[in-house]
Amino acid sequence: MNIGILGGGQLGLMMINEGRRLPFKFYVMDEREAPGCGIADKCFAPSDYKEIVDSSDVVTFEFEHVSEEALQYAQDEGKLLPSINSVELKRERYKEKEYYRDHGLPTPRFVVVRGGEDALRTLKDEFNNYGVIKQSRGGYDGKGQYFVKGDPSVASQVKDMNCTFVVEEFVDFDFEASVIGVRSRRGEFSAYPPTFNLNLKGILVYNYGPYGDPRMQEIVRKLADSLNYVGTIGVEFFVKGSSILINEFAPRVHNTGHYTLDGAMFSQFDQHVNAITGGDLLPTELTSPSGMLNLLGIEKVPITRTGKVYWYNKKEAKKRRKMGHVNVVGKDLEDVKGKIDILMKQIYDKGLDL
Amino acid sequence: MNIGILGGGQLGLMMINEGRRLPFKFYVMDEREAPGCGIADKCFAPSDYKEIVDSSDVVTFEFEHVSEEALQYAQDEGKLLPSINSVELKRERYKEKEYYRDHGLPTPRFVVVRGGEDALRTLKDEFNNYGVIKQSRGGYDGKGQYFVKGDPSVASQVKDMNCTFVVEEFVDFDFEASVIGVRSRRGEFSAYPPTFNLNLKGILVYNYGPYGDPRMQEIVRKLADSLNYVGTIGVEFFVKGSSILINEFAPRVHNTGHYTLDGAMFSQFDQHVNAITGGDLLPTELTSPSGMLNLLGIEKVPITRTGKVYWYNKKEAKKRRKMGHVNVVGKDLEDVKGKIDILMKQIYDKGLDL
Repeated sequence: MNIGILGGGQLGLMMINEGRRLPFKFYVMDEREAPGCGIADKCFAPSDYKEIVDSSDVVTFEFEHVSEEALQYAQDEGKLLPSINSVELKRERYKEKEYYRDHGLPTPRFVVVRGGEDALRTLKDEFNNYGVIKQSRGGYDGKGQYFVKGDPSVASQVKDMNCTFVVEEFVDFDFEASVIGVRSRRGEFSAYPPTFNLNLKGILVYNYGPYGDPRMQEIVRKLADSLNYVGTIGVEFFVKGSSILINEFAPRVHNTGHYTLDGAMFSQFDQHVNAITGGDLLPTELTSPSGMLNLLGIEKVPITRTGKVYWYNKKEAKKRRKMGHVNVVGKDLEDVKGKIDILMKQIYDKGLDL
Repeated sequence: MNIGILGGGQLGLMMINEGRRLPFKFYVMDEREAPGCGIADKCFAPSDYKEIVDSSDVVTFEFEHVSEEALQYAQDEGKLLPSINSVELKRERYKEKEYYRDHGLPTPRFVVVRGGEDALRTLKDEFNNYGVIKQSRGGYDGKGQYFVKGDPSVASQVKDMNCTFVVEEFVDFDFEASVIGVRSRRGEFSAYPPTFNLNLKGILVYNYGPYGDPRMQEIVRKLADSLNYVGTIGVEFFVKGSSILINEFAPRVHNTGHYTLDGAMFSQFDQHVNAITGGDLLPTELTSPSGMLNLLGIEKVPITRTGKVYWYNKKEAKKRRKMGHVNVVGKDLEDVKGKIDILMKQIYDKGLDL
């Protein structure tokens, strides 16, 4: 069976590596130097999107912000999984937020507005200046988000912008968490346990699990069922006391699921490939407590015995760029956390410049 | 770093797959349809052995019975790891046996003879017709071995053969076991725990561990140290009561080590790639009890949730051919063994034709 992957970043790279234990062919659409293209059975230029779709039995994506025409063509050909409805929610943040509200899925209170002035007025009137202004389009990894907690400097940045914004309450969470779920073509659902995630400046530094309230898994099931989703899905939460709120979801394998490469018999990548090719779900139990540390802007493959290094073979290191990650497993969470702390010191000894 | 692998069977295939998490290039010498060639960065025909050696920083092999001139050339260029001394022992069984004896490594009692008549006479005089006659050259997976326990039919097969034989005592073992060890360039050694192996008609059906006497690990260390070995090594044992005897060793990753793909943080393939490229040893602890079942002569990828299937993409299924394997993990050995039993029934429901 031929699997087409739109996008050839690290998520596509790992999907192929994990998928290699079974007789699939992997086609990737991206620039030739993309990590995933380096190991694909064939690499297609973005302009050849029709060809990759036509040569694949099923088409998926490793990143939702790839060429809209490629996604649409794959959808029209009946080959796209997960299907385009989930991507559409990610193109406009307000649609995602409204979807949560309309489906009874818990999410921070929000208001949708047009233009910077309206955003600032809403922030003041509705949220007492204690909130977040987010551009509706194009934001990920913390881009396009303006945190306002009575900080007047944000006003000048936002004021003259003429786009749609989501103005949201600021959740003073205890911690961030996520759940990686998977849903089969026949509608079966399963999820790995939640993890604790440390994000700094909007980017994931490390995560570990199992950690947190299993009710999160039920929320992910509800979301995936409502979308008639097929494949691996990642959902991020804010947790405060007993309150659980969805921050956002990703219609794909997710950075906070990389630990499953070593913490579980079947990784999130295994699950995704299996689900989109029509398999019955594979177990999502962890074999041990485990975690992951991102290698952000790191230039050289680190040498360590504390964890297992995955390097993405990106052309060039840049500030904030995910160059690889390190997985750890341990006999309990304390052991896992201890190893992550050792790695933090080994790898970011000179500081974490984000 | 460019790694050349002589031979592109399933061992080369898995070595590449596991090695992909780090920035190595993998070159394979084999026929184009070999499993390993399908995913190599470059495939070299056996006649181009000088080219693969010249383009690689380090050269290894996935099978010791590959082209002698390729091995020799890689050795002469100072690139072969493990080095050729271990392969030479495998070319002549009598050299391997003498090596054990000369280095104080326990192995069944044996006599080296020339010609079939001498072999039969020695069998009678020295072993009271209760032994094994093995051709010195070319035997693996049970080929070239004649088990004689007072069975006269073997005499006619062996009588007129004009080669060197090793005549060995027949060990009526309790079970067969093996240890996968690894030794670094700096001479550090580490080993996974021993496993219980079920061989039928000279071919491995399944194995699981940890199982058996840890003294086996020390014997492997002694062997690896004496050879100044670098890389992963597999050693098979006969265990009878408290007696441990080496049956044979393999200077490479080994079928009884496939379970480490899921039972340990670092697999035997990780270890091999790491060791030959000069890394400090990686941990060899298991993350859980685990095991493996070979897919012998199986024509289609089995569908199962009991274990994790690895399929080798071989061109054609044949009796006894290793088409893939299934790994299992469990909370204890009983759990692992139970899963193997389920798989035996699922996969060999129509019998195990060897």
